[in-house]
Amino acid sequence: MRLPESIRLFIEKLSELPSLGPRQATRVAFYLLRTGENNIKELGDAIHGMRKIRTCARCFFVHQNEDGLCEICRDPRRVSNIIMLVEKETDLMSLESTAKFKGKYLILGEIPKTGVLEGWQKLRLQNLKSLIQKEMNGRAEEIIVALNPTSVGDFNAATLGRELESFAKKISRLGRGLPTGGEIEFADDETLGSALERRS
Amino acid sequence: MRLPESIRLFIEKLSELPSLGPRQATRVAFYLLRTGENNIKELGDAIHGMRKIRTCARCFFVHQNEDGLCEICRDPRRVSNIIMLVEKETDLMSLESTAKFKGKYLILGEIPKTGVLEGWQKLRLQNLKSLIQKEMNGRAEEIIVALNPTSVGDFNAATLGRELESFAKKISRLGRGLPTGGEIEFADDETLGSALERRS
Repeated sequence: MRLPESIRLFIEKLSELPSLGPRQATRVAFYLLRTGENNIKELGDAIHGMRKIRTCARCFFVHQNEDGLCEICRDPRRVSNIIMLVEKETDLMSLESTAKFKGKYLILGEIPKTGVLEGWQKLRLQNLKSLIQKEMNGRAEEIIVALNPTSVGDFNAATLGRELESFAKKISRLGRGLPTGGEIEFADDETLGSALERRS
Repeated sequence: MRLPESIRLFIEKLSELPSLGPRQATRVAFYLLRTGENNIKELGDAIHGMRKIRTCARCFFVHQNEDGLCEICRDPRRVSNIIMLVEKETDLMSLESTAKFKGKYLILGEIPKTGVLEGWQKLRLQNLKSLIQKEMNGRAEEIIVALNPTSVGDFNAATLGRELESFAKKISRLGRGLPTGGEIEFADDETLGSALERRS
């Protein structure tokens, strides 16, 4: 059926977002209408507010600072020559919430299924190499390639590792084994195998 | 970790919507940022545009018309004295997409778990009764109480049916039986029982 133009446009735009199909978007639209005009305005303003967000010139995480750097990159307490390579901003956030890493990051963006980096991703890697050359005499202390522990992730991590080999004293990956709270009975062979190999 | 204020506010507002928890909202935020400022502006505008939406003075469905009526209520080809009572706008949309109903609607809103209508819902019922009194000499041809075929829905439908009894020549509900495309083997007892009773 034909909905009023404004709702149709809203549902269309909302359906483009991840985890929202047309059905969910429609439900959200009617939900929003029930919450009233003020709330709709606030949500619209919140979205417009996102236009102020910039990406960090060093690690490409988000920020809203005048100097072009994110909170992590401008923090003098963070070690600059240990760099963790992650695909997504949300990966960085999960890692940060452990509060166990005191180095810095590079957000590479999701690596395409082909395994071949896109132009802008190559530029980010290039950016990292230049930084290492300029500020670390050509060699970082460590580069941690923190891609997902999947077969695709493993393959891409190996490729990236080779590419960055000469730019760090050590190239590492995140540890593999049983997830805390997991049960041996239900662990897959691959995980269990890793846990055995890396027992300590 | 502390995200920039604008993103935090956006994630907070977005998390309030149905089918979006904080995790999904965060993913949506970073996805949006990747799509660029233009797209963010368009989504914000689309949401602000929703403030133009009004609810129909007769059936309470949405519209954007000057005369205060939705497309269905202002359509002269629709029969006015057969009224379908639904809970949600999306129920109305699903029913409309069958193109089998030529009457009109009343959107009652989701009935609370207590089964007791809220003030605004009672007003909507009162509105319907007044309409029937003014325009149909006190009796509609038929009122279809189209609540979900659940035990709660059945209970509420019975209550509503009694309340509206004197306002229509016939009070009906949607047919019960096997869903088209369903399999007898997997139908639950309740459904199969209804299908047997109502065989034709």
